[in-house]
Amino acid sequence: MGIAIIFGANGGIGQEFVKQALERYAVVFACSRPKKATPDSSKLPDIKTLDNGLVKVELNPHDEEQLQRFAQHVREQYGHVDLIINAIGILHDSKELQPEKKIEDFNLDNFIEMMTVNASATALIAKHFIKLLKQSDAQPAILASLSARVGSISDNRLGGWYSYRASKAALNQIIKTLSIEVARRNKNTAVIALHPGTTDTKLSKPFQQNVKPGKLFSPEYSVRKLFEIIDNLFLEDNGKFFAWDGSTIEW
Amino acid sequence: MGIAIIFGANGGIGQEFVKQALERYAVVFACSRPKKATPDSSKLPDIKTLDNGLVKVELNPHDEEQLQRFAQHVREQYGHVDLIINAIGILHDSKELQPEKKIEDFNLDNFIEMMTVNASATALIAKHFIKLLKQSDAQPAILASLSARVGSISDNRLGGWYSYRASKAALNQIIKTLSIEVARRNKNTAVIALHPGTTDTKLSKPFQQNVKPGKLFSPEYSVRKLFEIIDNLFLEDNGKFFAWDGSTIEW
Ligand SMILES: NC(=O)c1ccc[n+]([C@@H]2O[C@H](COP(=O)([O-])OP(=O)(O)OC[C@H]3O[C@@H](n4cnc5c(N)ncnc54)[C@H](OP(=O)(O)O)[C@@H]3O)[C@@H](O)[C@H]2O)c1
Ligand SMILES: NC(=O)c1ccc[n+]([C@@H]2O[C@H](COP(=O)([O-])OP(=O)(O)OC[C@H]3O[C@@H](n4cnc5c(N)ncnc54)[C@H](OP(=O)(O)O)[C@@H]3O)[C@@H](O)[C@H]2O)c1
Repeated sequence: MGIAIIFGANGGIGQEFVKQALERYAVVFACSRPKKATPDSSKLPDIKTLDNGLVKVELNPHDEEQLQRFAQHVREQYGHVDLIINAIGILHDSKELQPEKKIEDFNLDNFIEMMTVNASATALIAKHFIKLLKQSDAQPAILASLSARVGSISDNRLGGWYSYRASKAALNQIIKTLSIEVARRNKNTAVIALHPGTTDTKLSKPFQQNVKPGKLFSPEYSVRKLFEIIDNLFLEDNGKFFAWDGSTIEW
Repeated sequence: MGIAIIFGANGGIGQEFVKQALERYAVVFACSRPKKATPDSSKLPDIKTLDNGLVKVELNPHDEEQLQRFAQHVREQYGHVDLIINAIGILHDSKELQPEKKIEDFNLDNFIEMMTVNASATALIAKHFIKLLKQSDAQPAILASLSARVGSISDNRLGGWYSYRASKAALNQIIKTLSIEVARRNKNTAVIALHPGTTDTKLSKPFQQNVKPGKLFSPEYSVRKLFEIIDNLFLEDNGKFFAWDGSTIEW
């Protein structure tokens, strides 16, 4: 039975991944941060099973005890997972966190915040789910993380956005390193990075005026293109960085 | 007058950079962390001028007030800097920080520690010194940061060492981004990443048994090779990642 887990399920892209995953997988865990932090529930992921295969999970992906308990739940219920999508990410917040225009804007706290959200979450998720990544049919089991073309070092021509770029480069290195580890440990598993193209979400909102006409995608379109990649992935694709159109991006 | 600043001047490679820089530059600032934290001096970098051109500076590179005051001192005394080397780095400590063998070893605190030391320091140094990077002769002014081949995503074939690899990939992205900014803002300035080869220092000590004979360099040799690159650098080299032998490393 096909099992999928989407992290960042409240995000523009994550929400759409949940929707389109439900057309493909028998069970879809939609994971997002708890709306309000209730002190007593802080150690337990909140898991609610709905009737169409959707399971709503509230957990903090940086709380390893919650991740570990959630992994235990998935193992006990299904014994494996076919697809993990990490669609968590941050580029700005309503406060001081903004992408740097120049090096003088660089700030250690913001850098650490971006690294924690954009790079470490995939490592923590992989840490707790690597043993569960097993396909239930001929296709590889897949861990796909939303990266960004601006994380490519080779492709960097504009500059700026130091912390976001560095966090996505770090994420890409984590994905490449994981791909080597799963090739050794897992059967038929692929770990990949995905660039969705500029997509109309909260994250891209403040920067959309620079986007060329026709180049701002709806989440529906981006995720449909990304699922074309996922649906047709081969084991040989393990460790690659794909753009929405199926082309690979250099590191 | 040639002015050089070496950060990480107490390290195996940093110490040697100070020595060989003194053969080339009129003034060499050797910056290292304060041995003991004295609360009253916490906001002041400690600057001691010795007689052979050597200036010993004690400061914490993650304390922006100290960095800013030190930059102010250099500006007032000399008005510019020709060469900045960042030879700070961490791979393990005497406690729990060790490079990961497998994803289960990944730990958020260790990841953040490596990111802070290995990636952010170069950004903070650049933030406070970018306006001072001006050459005093025909050669470009240079900001060179010690990276590592294992930070290359393309070159990653062995896996493991998640946090160190990710921190050096993040550093490489910061260097690439900086190279674009200096090309726009500075006259005749180059920012580069350097791989010293496996060098006999505290950092490599626990991993030296795997090194092929003849491939473990003395700091004297590594730094001599790195100075061959620095001494002959052209503006066109801005944004490149060089190994000790002068070859470039793919990102
Ligand atoms: N949109 C684009 O143009 C674009 C382009 C390239 C790459 N990407 C990447 O695509 C991914 C999805 O972005 P999006 O466009 O869908 O943005 P979004 O709508 O802002 O969604 C971001 C998601 O990340 C979650 N998140 C943020 N901080 C978190 C934290 N500390 N802990 C847990 N979750 C956290 C948010 O959770 P809450 O809902 O709880 O806040 C939200 O679900 C990101 O990795 C982004 O970098 C997007
Ligand atoms: N040795 C190798 O084989 C090798 C290979 C590839 C790349 N590298 C890179 O080369 C650079 C130099 O390494 P090394 O071999 O000379 O190692 P090392 O002898 O251990 O020196 C590391 C230096 O970093 C400083 N440092 C560590 N944590 C710091 C912090 N939080 N704040 C400020 N300074 C801090 C240390 O200061 P203290 O002296 O005060 O502790 C020391 O000066 C590093 O970036 C390393 O990653 C080395």
